Amino acid sequence: MDILFLSDNTAPADHRIVQAVAEAGIGYAKSYGSDKWTDEADELFKREFGEHTLYFPVLTGTGANVISLASALSTYQSILCAETAHIACDECGAVERFTGSKLVPIKTPDGKLTPEMLKPCLAHIGFEHQSQPKVVSISQTTETGAAYSTEELKALSDFTKENNLILHIDGSRIANAAAGMSLSLNQVCEGADIVSFGGTKNGLMMGEAVLFLNPKLAESAKYVRKQYGQLFSKMRYVSAQFIPYLRESIWLENAHRANTVAGRLAEGFTDKGITIKYPVDGNAVFAHLSDEQIKRLSEKYLFYVWDKTENLCRFVCPYTADESDTERLLALL
Amino acid sequence: MDILFLSDNTAPADHRIVQAVAEAGIGYAKSYGSDKWTDEADELFKREFGEHTLYFPVLTGTGANVISLASALSTYQSILCAETAHIACDECGAVERFTGSKLVPIKTPDGKLTPEMLKPCLAHIGFEHQSQPKVVSISQTTETGAAYSTEELKALSDFTKENNLILHIDGSRIANAAAGMSLSLNQVCEGADIVSFGGTKNGLMMGEAVLFLNPKLAESAKYVRKQYGQLFSKMRYVSAQFIPYLRESIWLENAHRANTVAGRLAEGFTDKGITIKYPVDGNAVFAHLSDEQIKRLSEKYLFYVWDKTENLCRFVCPYTADESDTERLLALL
Amino acid sequence: MDILFLSDNTAPADHRIVQAVAEAGIGYAKSYGSDKWTDEADELFKREFGEHTLYFPVLTGTGANVISLASALSTYQSILCAETAHIACDECGAVERFTGSKLVPIKTPDGKLTPEMLKPCLAHIGFEHQSQPKVVSISQTTETGAAYSTEELKALSDFTKENNLILHIDGSRIANAAAGMSLSLNQVCEGADIVSFGGTKNGLMMGEAVLFLNPKLAESAKYVRKQYGQLFSKMRYVSAQFIPYLRESIWLENAHRANTVAGRLAEGFTDKGITIKYPVDGNAVFAHLSDEQIKRLSEKYLFYVWDKTENLCRFVCPYTADESDTERLLALL
Amino acid sequence: MDILFLSDNTAPADHRIVQAVAEAGIGYAKSYGSDKWTDEADELFKREFGEHTLYFPVLTGTGANVISLASALSTYQSILCAETAHIACDECGAVERFTGSKLVPIKTPDGKLTPEMLKPCLAHIGFEHQSQPKVVSISQTTETGAAYSTEELKALSDFTKENNLILHIDGSRIANAAAGMSLSLNQVCEGADIVSFGGTKNGLMMGEAVLFLNPKLAESAKYVRKQYGQLFSKMRYVSAQFIPYLRESIWLENAHRANTVAGRLAEGFTDKGITIKYPVDGNAVFAHLSDEQIKRLSEKYLFYVWDKTENLCRFVCPYTADESDTERLLALL
Repeated sequence: MDILFLSDNTAPADHRIVQAVAEAGIGYAKSYGSDKWTDEADELFKREFGEHTLYFPVLTGTGANVISLASALSTYQSILCAETAHIACDECGAVERFTGSKLVPIKTPDGKLTPEMLKPCLAHIGFEHQSQPKVVSISQTTETGAAYSTEELKALSDFTKENNLILHIDGSRIANAAAGMSLSLNQVCEGADIVSFGGTKNGLMMGEAVLFLNPKLAESAKYVRKQYGQLFSKMRYVSAQFIPYLRESIWLENAHRANTVAGRLAEGFTDKGITIKYPVDGNAVFAHLSDEQIKRLSEKYLFYVWDKTENLCRFVCPYTADESDTERLLALL
Repeated sequence: MDILFLSDNTAPADHRIVQAVAEAGIGYAKSYGSDKWTDEADELFKREFGEHTLYFPVLTGTGANVISLASALSTYQSILCAETAHIACDECGAVERFTGSKLVPIKTPDGKLTPEMLKPCLAHIGFEHQSQPKVVSISQTTETGAAYSTEELKALSDFTKENNLILHIDGSRIANAAAGMSLSLNQVCEGADIVSFGGTKNGLMMGEAVLFLNPKLAESAKYVRKQYGQLFSKMRYVSAQFIPYLRESIWLENAHRANTVAGRLAEGFTDKGITIKYPVDGNAVFAHLSDEQIKRLSEKYLFYVWDKTENLCRFVCPYTADESDTERLLALL
Repeated sequence: MDILFLSDNTAPADHRIVQAVAEAGIGYAKSYGSDKWTDEADELFKREFGEHTLYFPVLTGTGANVISLASALSTYQSILCAETAHIACDECGAVERFTGSKLVPIKTPDGKLTPEMLKPCLAHIGFEHQSQPKVVSISQTTETGAAYSTEELKALSDFTKENNLILHIDGSRIANAAAGMSLSLNQVCEGADIVSFGGTKNGLMMGEAVLFLNPKLAESAKYVRKQYGQLFSKMRYVSAQFIPYLRESIWLENAHRANTVAGRLAEGFTDKGITIKYPVDGNAVFAHLSDEQIKRLSEKYLFYVWDKTENLCRFVCPYTADESDTERLLALL
Repeated sequence: MDILFLSDNTAPADHRIVQAVAEAGIGYAKSYGSDKWTDEADELFKREFGEHTLYFPVLTGTGANVISLASALSTYQSILCAETAHIACDECGAVERFTGSKLVPIKTPDGKLTPEMLKPCLAHIGFEHQSQPKVVSISQTTETGAAYSTEELKALSDFTKENNLILHIDGSRIANAAAGMSLSLNQVCEGADIVSFGGTKNGLMMGEAVLFLNPKLAESAKYVRKQYGQLFSKMRYVSAQFIPYLRESIWLENAHRANTVAGRLAEGFTDKGITIKYPVDGNAVFAHLSDEQIKRLSEKYLFYVWDKTENLCRFVCPYTADESDTERLLALL
């Protein structure tokens, strides 16, 4: 069975990343991040996101999200997010268990939050019977493959600032958002306070980072990272991956390739009369297939039937895919 | 400054491990552990520890310990451990925060627990004003470099079984214990229910495992691992390391080398009239230096003054050290 | 301002309850529940709910709910409840913080859950990326004033049993449900595993109880109650209230009075052309008032405008109200 | 069996307190503390402890302690306390479970902490591998019946201020400390930031309070109290007790009586050649009895053998005891 379109976690690490990992293994280095690779990665993130940026390398996406959120709020405060958000649906309650906080899932048409949706959640500020909203967490790109435009981001950022809230971005596919809109990484995070910066889905071996764009929020971050088991002893092996990833724009190259393939797949679906449900801003395509089409594809491919009630299927393109992969799948329909 | 003896986390990964990592990066593989490398590592752990063994790869030592403990107990139960235990002293309260449970630190002469020390802790079973003891957690080797003999282990294992307790081993240096006593990995864990099986300190790049020798305790483990952010998407990169580590006995070779150097260092200290505080059963040496000796060594080396009140200094030998490293240090004294 | 209809927490304790409290203050008594009042209350609860029933007196409604839920589940499991449930909306995230578990709020037309609504939540049993559903928590009567009929309860109870789930009832107004349907307390809890049995809203001074109708679930309850700060030292003062409350059917008398007044209020509203949104099965009335009506009532009364977007107003009748109270309010419209 | 000396929780509420409770039950009152009794109690606490004082009534001693501590610290911070502290030994891990923080138990000769004992705990400030000390929690009187003098308190208070720590007093027997040293309630709390102000052991029915003497620490307190299930709906019934307790100095009268009896008991023991282990500053006496004496007393009395290895027995005098009670017990020896 072909697992190519099942998830962007199925691809191996980029060969340039593997080489960087191998080269980081020379000589002794202080553990837990006091090493030259971590310093250099920090420098590169500052170049990308501004001098105020603080870089905390971690190992997994759940790690990046939980540490971001646990650093940002107290246990009596809540997190507002789309009801489709990865932190709400796919982390086995990790956020609730580690932070003790409440997640408030908000219904959205397409996985994107707007100030209008958030306003009603602020009705009970100061009322001790209800968790106090503190963080707005959005995904860029969203779990449905859409991206927040700079205008949409600005509206959210203005809203959170006005209401003394913190804006967190789950950026497990942040590179796909930037590549898709031809913007810089910083531009697709503009106005955010904390970013879970993803790498593993886009060519890294194991590497994510918590970026504090608002450094005042980082006071407890180093302790929280340790408590959550993500203070990696041989940290150089994570930081070494971010160096070529940022310096040589591997992030852009890989994300661009994945997005292009996704775009081609969506086109191919459309050509065959298949409806695409959400904007294809990154590397994911959500298509309404017929029972017959699902059956036919399922003989050769593994993929998620996202919502059985509407035959909505998800196809995610890894950075390693190319157009021949698309054509092969489309040919089956 | 030379950091050779500062910690066994300063050494790079073994070149054979790096090669295994590189070779794991071929083609697509299902994520989150449904891959052939994880199957093979599981097979090898079963060969080493018995068919009943369940293998849960994780990323960090804190991860292995917290997941072991959180799987084993309910939040009203407590963990008995030496007051010098890593879980009590060096994980920033990770255990308490994630499990909600109480750690009960017990005073010991040398970091090793005995049934006699544990007995008084069971005085209030069933009394709702006190956390209920459930797990005994020991370190093999201990944080002071000593190892539990098979007799000592048996005594603890009998005690825990008789009292309906769970025996957990923090085995971040389990290979050093086995190499030091010329025993198998299984023998130095005999009678334990759960083992945090360490690899990173002995040549792996990033790799630890939670081993359930008592598989009945693993019921919640997969959820707990996910909640604690250690369900790594590209799990093959961890499992691939354990394959040569176990199959080619890299664990033994590396641990033996580190232990040998530690033994030579202890001898050299003794020859110079320096007292060694704890048995050197693994790769750590705790020596009482004079102020003058500390000063002289500190000009060239970083090392921990473990207890300032008694000038007790810790030297840990990485698997990469050799006798010339020892001679160089001893020559300074 | 008249606060009569603001909440059923505004009324004082029933004079017979106050007398029972006063009489409990004679002589010494063992603390923490080892007293004759607690034994007698336990006996009365067993008479009401069956011999298997276990009675754990607590102090607050939040206490009863959190202890019920924390006893019933592990931290990787989730709680399914109506999105209007008190545990989801009005306990400041107490459940998430203390249990570490996820609450899954489910949209309902009227605050009542059905098996059909619950089924989709079981789609991912065994999938470690998602919290595992374990408890279904319903409110009897609901926060909207409706009650589950015995048929509705049976359907839920069958469903939870078939799916290895636990059925919890938040019974802060359980007496109103029983009185409203002319059923016994046991009948309106039929099939539940754990009941938060309320008293304070219906004439007690401070008294709730966690009732385990499924005693196997009570294994950790006494520890959990202590950990949650609800093991009251002078427990006799709580248990003493339940004795006349159950023996003399004060619960029924008071609930019946409150329900009757609520029914009369609903009738009065209807007579004036005001729409009642939810069935008035207990002591709460939810009515759609006009802006003008809200304004007029607000001059004399405090009450909750439950949903501003539809001018939905809540009136809760305390057990002390009588028909003259209703007439006085209605006269204003 | 006589339980008089078993615990100060065995006595009933003071009759004047019962009367106050009964009188609070007149008419409707807003719930959750927005009532005139709570306002008046607040006023009285301000008179006693200063205008800056913030009063949060709660229901149990565990409640007061957990809410105090959870308000004062973040989950990566730790609490330093005597290893005999009630929060460490007798609350079933409530603090760890609810706050997620680490308790650091410190060995003391008599249950009292000093700056010298605390200093070594500050060795690793800023080091992310260790929980960061934030709160020093002491008991006044201690669990061994001793009281901190104003000098001892000042030394601790100076130390905590210098080191950016918070001083918390577990004052479940604060009245006994004040009565024993002929000081005001404020004087025996001088320099503390937060006080768990006890009442239940000294004549209240159910009533404790969290007092913030440093009001800046109270920011999250109202939410934390709700989350911990101690926001009592009919709060007037707690506050009404504190009014006569403070206004009519019932606290002093009752504590004085209990202390006097304890003093007489200690004298009686000494007269019979029995050694008293700790200073009898309050209402508890710890005496080394012989096996024979323990046996003889045990025929008529229930009491705690605190430490079996040294035949150390605890006798606590409730506020209701008088000298005839003492003579009766002494006569048995």
